[in-house]
Amino acid sequence: MAELIHTIHPISSEVRQYINRVTKEYTIKKGEKLIAEGDICKYLYLIKQGVVRAYIKEGGQEVTIWICAEGEIVTSIRGFFSRKPVVECVEVIEDSILIAADYNDMERMFERYPETNVAGRKLLELYYQDAEERAIIARMPRAETKYAYFVAHKGYLLNRIPLRYIASYLGMTLETLSRIRSKLSRHK
Amino acid sequence: MAELIHTIHPISSEVRQYINRVTKEYTIKKGEKLIAEGDICKYLYLIKQGVVRAYIKEGGQEVTIWICAEGEIVTSIRGFFSRKPVVECVEVIEDSILIAADYNDMERMFERYPETNVAGRKLLELYYQDAEERAIIARMPRAETKYAYFVAHKGYLLNRIPLRYIASYLGMTLETLSRIRSKLSRHK
Repeated sequence: MAELIHTIHPISSEVRQYINRVTKEYTIKKGEKLIAEGDICKYLYLIKQGVVRAYIKEGGQEVTIWICAEGEIVTSIRGFFSRKPVVECVEVIEDSILIAADYNDMERMFERYPETNVAGRKLLELYYQDAEERAIIARMPRAETKYAYFVAHKGYLLNRIPLRYIASYLGMTLETLSRIRSKLSRHK
Repeated sequence: MAELIHTIHPISSEVRQYINRVTKEYTIKKGEKLIAEGDICKYLYLIKQGVVRAYIKEGGQEVTIWICAEGEIVTSIRGFFSRKPVVECVEVIEDSILIAADYNDMERMFERYPETNVAGRKLLELYYQDAEERAIIARMPRAETKYAYFVAHKGYLLNRIPLRYIASYLGMTLETLSRIRSKLSRHK
């Protein structure tokens, strides 16, 4: 975690030591839940290895709202920052190694080491853009455009995760996604 | 702008003076574009009065990606922070008064007055949650749930802006939106 923050904005070795002291590494099995609906979300996680997805449940359906892999920080975005009960579920969909950071430890870091606010701000600028991408891709009217956009931005996930998660994330049926994929492969 | 930032995290009168000096107030007519596709987005705007929406164009269709009103800060999220050409359009949909802040002036503020990074981080935490809301609402499978969610979170916009923008933002046809609204009004 300290290394990632340092690449965004330089931090002192004292801050690095603080971060290394308060964060913990976990190995999590595929299928395990990190955050469940109704929880107060205490942690954010840096994915050292693996894939994590978040979904909401509506009318018996699971709707994938994001999928993240190595190098990305994940949490319940609204739950972690608002301290309100979480409405989504966050689960590990590949055996994963995660670095967990506690909300209170992060807040203490921002108070104790003012320079970490620069890193925090810059990281949030990046993640804010990502969330905006997710809001835009879901609104694109054509399934083909959505898929092309996904391949361009998140193509590295394609052969790694079940297609049903991608279909759900893109707001299309598995049949539509498969049809687009086979059409594209014929045109290659 | 300075007042808003101060409510998020206290800033000195020197910083307030800086912000007041570098920001400018504009009166913008309904229908005018703030940011057009292909622009490099130089400004962010605090809406003092009025309503602003952003949309993307796809296959001759305009798809509304967000709608904001008084007290909210707007810009091309990806364009402003990435300095890359903008893919969406941002337009004023009610006569509006906006306070504009230039990207370079904001960057200088963060460098010159380190405490503003705390305010910047906290503001981004709030806007990040908003973007996540927009990403989630677009993925809700049932039109009724989407609309109920919109009413709960953005109900103050309902009688103020054309319904076609709301329908487009929610990813449904105007007919579907009207059907839901008339069904709900019959049940009142």
